[in-house]
Amino acid sequence: MLLHRAVIPHLRQACRLKSAPSRLYIRACSTDDSLQPQCPSLAFSGDNSSTGGWKVMGTLLGLGAVLAYHDHRCRATQESPHVYTREEVRSHSSPETRIWVTLGCEVFDVTEFVDLHPGGPSKLMLAAGGPLEPFWALYAVHNQPHVREMLAQYKIGELSPEDKVPSTLKTSDPYIDDPVRHPALKVNSQRPFNAEPPPELLTENYITPNPIFFTRNHLPVPNLDPETYRLHVVGPPGGQSLCLSLDDLYKFPRHEITVTLQCAGNRRSEMTQFKEVRGLEWNIGAISTARWAGARLCDVLAKAGHQLCETEAHVCFEGLDSDPTGTAYGASIPLARAMDPEAEVLLAYEMNGQPLPRDHGFPVRVVVPGVVGARHVKWLGKVSVEPEESYSHWQRRDYKGFSPSVDWDTVDFDSAPSIQELPVQSAITEPKDGETVQSGEVTIKGYAWSGGGRAVVRVDVSLDGGLTWHVAELDGEEQRPRKAWAWRLWQLQAPVPAGRKELNIVCKAVDDSYNVQPDTVAPIWNLRGVLSNAWHRVHVHVAP
Amino acid sequence: MLLHRAVIPHLRQACRLKSAPSRLYIRACSTDDSLQPQCPSLAFSGDNSSTGGWKVMGTLLGLGAVLAYHDHRCRATQESPHVYTREEVRSHSSPETRIWVTLGCEVFDVTEFVDLHPGGPSKLMLAAGGPLEPFWALYAVHNQPHVREMLAQYKIGELSPEDKVPSTLKTSDPYIDDPVRHPALKVNSQRPFNAEPPPELLTENYITPNPIFFTRNHLPVPNLDPETYRLHVVGPPGGQSLCLSLDDLYKFPRHEITVTLQCAGNRRSEMTQFKEVRGLEWNIGAISTARWAGARLCDVLAKAGHQLCETEAHVCFEGLDSDPTGTAYGASIPLARAMDPEAEVLLAYEMNGQPLPRDHGFPVRVVVPGVVGARHVKWLGKVSVEPEESYSHWQRRDYKGFSPSVDWDTVDFDSAPSIQELPVQSAITEPKDGETVQSGEVTIKGYAWSGGGRAVVRVDVSLDGGLTWHVAELDGEEQRPRKAWAWRLWQLQAPVPAGRKELNIVCKAVDDSYNVQPDTVAPIWNLRGVLSNAWHRVHVHVAP
Repeated sequence: MLLHRAVIPHLRQACRLKSAPSRLYIRACSTDDSLQPQCPSLAFSGDNSSTGGWKVMGTLLGLGAVLAYHDHRCRATQESPHVYTREEVRSHSSPETRIWVTLGCEVFDVTEFVDLHPGGPSKLMLAAGGPLEPFWALYAVHNQPHVREMLAQYKIGELSPEDKVPSTLKTSDPYIDDPVRHPALKVNSQRPFNAEPPPELLTENYITPNPIFFTRNHLPVPNLDPETYRLHVVGPPGGQSLCLSLDDLYKFPRHEITVTLQCAGNRRSEMTQFKEVRGLEWNIGAISTARWAGARLCDVLAKAGHQLCETEAHVCFEGLDSDPTGTAYGASIPLARAMDPEAEVLLAYEMNGQPLPRDHGFPVRVVVPGVVGARHVKWLGKVSVEPEESYSHWQRRDYKGFSPSVDWDTVDFDSAPSIQELPVQSAITEPKDGETVQSGEVTIKGYAWSGGGRAVVRVDVSLDGGLTWHVAELDGEEQRPRKAWAWRLWQLQAPVPAGRKELNIVCKAVDDSYNVQPDTVAPIWNLRGVLSNAWHRVHVHVAP
Repeated sequence: MLLHRAVIPHLRQACRLKSAPSRLYIRACSTDDSLQPQCPSLAFSGDNSSTGGWKVMGTLLGLGAVLAYHDHRCRATQESPHVYTREEVRSHSSPETRIWVTLGCEVFDVTEFVDLHPGGPSKLMLAAGGPLEPFWALYAVHNQPHVREMLAQYKIGELSPEDKVPSTLKTSDPYIDDPVRHPALKVNSQRPFNAEPPPELLTENYITPNPIFFTRNHLPVPNLDPETYRLHVVGPPGGQSLCLSLDDLYKFPRHEITVTLQCAGNRRSEMTQFKEVRGLEWNIGAISTARWAGARLCDVLAKAGHQLCETEAHVCFEGLDSDPTGTAYGASIPLARAMDPEAEVLLAYEMNGQPLPRDHGFPVRVVVPGVVGARHVKWLGKVSVEPEESYSHWQRRDYKGFSPSVDWDTVDFDSAPSIQELPVQSAITEPKDGETVQSGEVTIKGYAWSGGGRAVVRVDVSLDGGLTWHVAELDGEEQRPRKAWAWRLWQLQAPVPAGRKELNIVCKAVDDSYNVQPDTVAPIWNLRGVLSNAWHRVHVHVAP
């Protein structure tokens, strides 16, 4: 508890909030990334950083919940409790071994409660064997007396006091300084860190909470001091360059928009099932939505003296993340998009009302609505206008689409355009593949999105592999014409046809240019496994 | 010949040409539509208008070729020739009956020449049983001495002199005044007139010659006097309206762009094969490309005092074509598109260097690059800015996409957005379905296009129904970024795998948002049969 009290003033300072945040999870979210530089002794690394992170997250993330829980704890059972290590707790994560969780220093056996969990068993199972705080921090609904009372019934003991000491640091690792992450994230790669939220959390909120927003890093996360941070904006030939501090950026008109980011490799694992590709095994979660605020790139470029020109030009971005040779991450977008106020390209310094988390580009990243995630350069260091696209590897030798006939022996990267706008996409987040659903009625949920500001106008769902279709209900979020930068969540309640033992559930979306998703993955297979947007298919069993 | 000489001065006057046209077919093109009002006695109607048109086209359309042919004719065989009626000629249109054609008043049996035709047998077969002039007019390459000498070998007689007299007029038909059309057009409906060029002509030129540009009329073609024509542009509330003559329109800056138009119903016949729809049976030819010139709509709207407003608004267009109740054709596009100079929406008065042909909106039509043909309102009478979309039937109760699950009992037209931008599309124009190709190597040709200015970046072609793919060669026409308003023609020379007796040829295109075509037609089937853009499939036999 001492730790929590010590960090709160830092937290408030880091958040630059004019008023106190009204939702618990937002305050808690910022701690995982933006607070970390002030508390270097809390950083974990190496192969165990995920589990190490888990330990710290338990104390760090659930601040609100834990503080509120403090009084209750004093009223808990007074007899000398059983003492368990986190290792022991971790070994109780399935119905066979029983399901344990922790809250603060208390340990609970919630095996009997799992099926009663109002949010569904699968969500509670995400915390099995570990702390509840990261999840309670996301879903403030838990922070109520009746929830805590319910939980108290399942208490079986307390955590060993030694278990609160963090592991020692390893100083030789370039990823040593990476922030701690939310344990719900499904990690595809630790170094660089790449992770996605599990499907059942992905569409729980229209706005993805910062701690579970999918993370796609190409290099170690730089540790930048907001006081000394400068953004270098190269001026036009003969003109002056700008060197902007964060305070300088704040002086540009503040622009705020809701934008969905998607990695080009989202759903790559489905391509891999057809034929091997090179790339991270993303499931359907390399996509997330946030409310971004920042300066419009067009305002900053205009201030530097740039104008839209008749000839094709590109705005090149360089990150402050770099590999051991000093090569920075880079990408570019066409100048026409950058200069168009309606395209709303941002130099973002806020994500969901908070300073950017470190994993998402603290203190400044580019947000290019409707465009592939790879162009949303994080930890932005430099902006320039060039006659050619960025010469970065990631612009010219990656993030491009090819015919299924092209392999690594025949690929000519110059023959394909760099991915900018993405095609129409959708996926089913509930039920999950292999799950058993009840007979009677099935509820199907998912997301749908399209690039370029094209609105999703319809999602078709089939229970029979695509022979017959239902029209799903789209959520009520308003979409501005030509600026539909964010996804639509959707759902369908459909009767399970009598006598069916299994369902082949399929979804496909249509955008307002009436583009549709292709039926199958093989014909869009490509050697990098990008642009995987075939119908999403989930096979489930029907309970007898 | 007297007829030809009589019409030439009218023709030149009607064309408003500053300099003589350099390409024969363009001069010839304009005659079929714009000349017709001056020569009412040439109009045909009723069920025979297609064949009637054919007769006149033979004398009217091939002016250049026929004039050049005049000297040659005088040198032709002097002995008393056999005399045939057009009816007799028409009955010789297949290898079984032998293949006859006419040029001027001469009749030729070209059965032995068909397989030697340098442009391919199928193109010559388009003229079987009728006159060569409409085709020679399109392809000026024929107008050379050696071609005429080659043809002279096949002469078998002359046309009966009575056959030059046109049929009598029927005055009660609302379509009485429709222009004569090119005989190569495949007619899907005579009244209103709807027709497409045959596949083998469609991609012969990057620019579709006016006489074979696909025609999609909803009502009879109005017969408008360019001297008295006025375009009514409604001003903003409290402002003044404009009443523009053609000369007024010419005073706006002239803007010229190459744009592909596609009917929403293109390739509907493939949907019909899966399940019945309501609509014209378009094959793959309800798409064509022209060079359009006119005033930019944004300039005309600005002159009328309109500005881009924050709230969503629509520019409504009304045609001067109307049904018996006086209801005009109408449609609308979003104001944001209309006001965007980069969207290049035109009030077009020229098509391929000529005044608009009557079938294509003479004297003024809207051209909305990247948008479905239905919004390119022809014979434009009125433009207004409204808070809502056009209330026209064709905006609100037609030209919308629905789920395959929706039928005429359940359809809710308000639930779907009106089609504006179209999805990515491609089709194979050569070889044709059912054709026999030579073993060794096969040449495959086609077109590809996408809506919204999205460039086609790749066309994949398969010879085995989609199991393996080749990348087709795209033609060299330059595409401006974000303004790829016109199609790409493509071709592929591929070896025919040894021992194959048949090929299932498939094509699919990718646009620069990496949108792709769906694999199959059933999942995109809709009750109106619009937006048919599944992979295009052609089944051919391989010669032993």
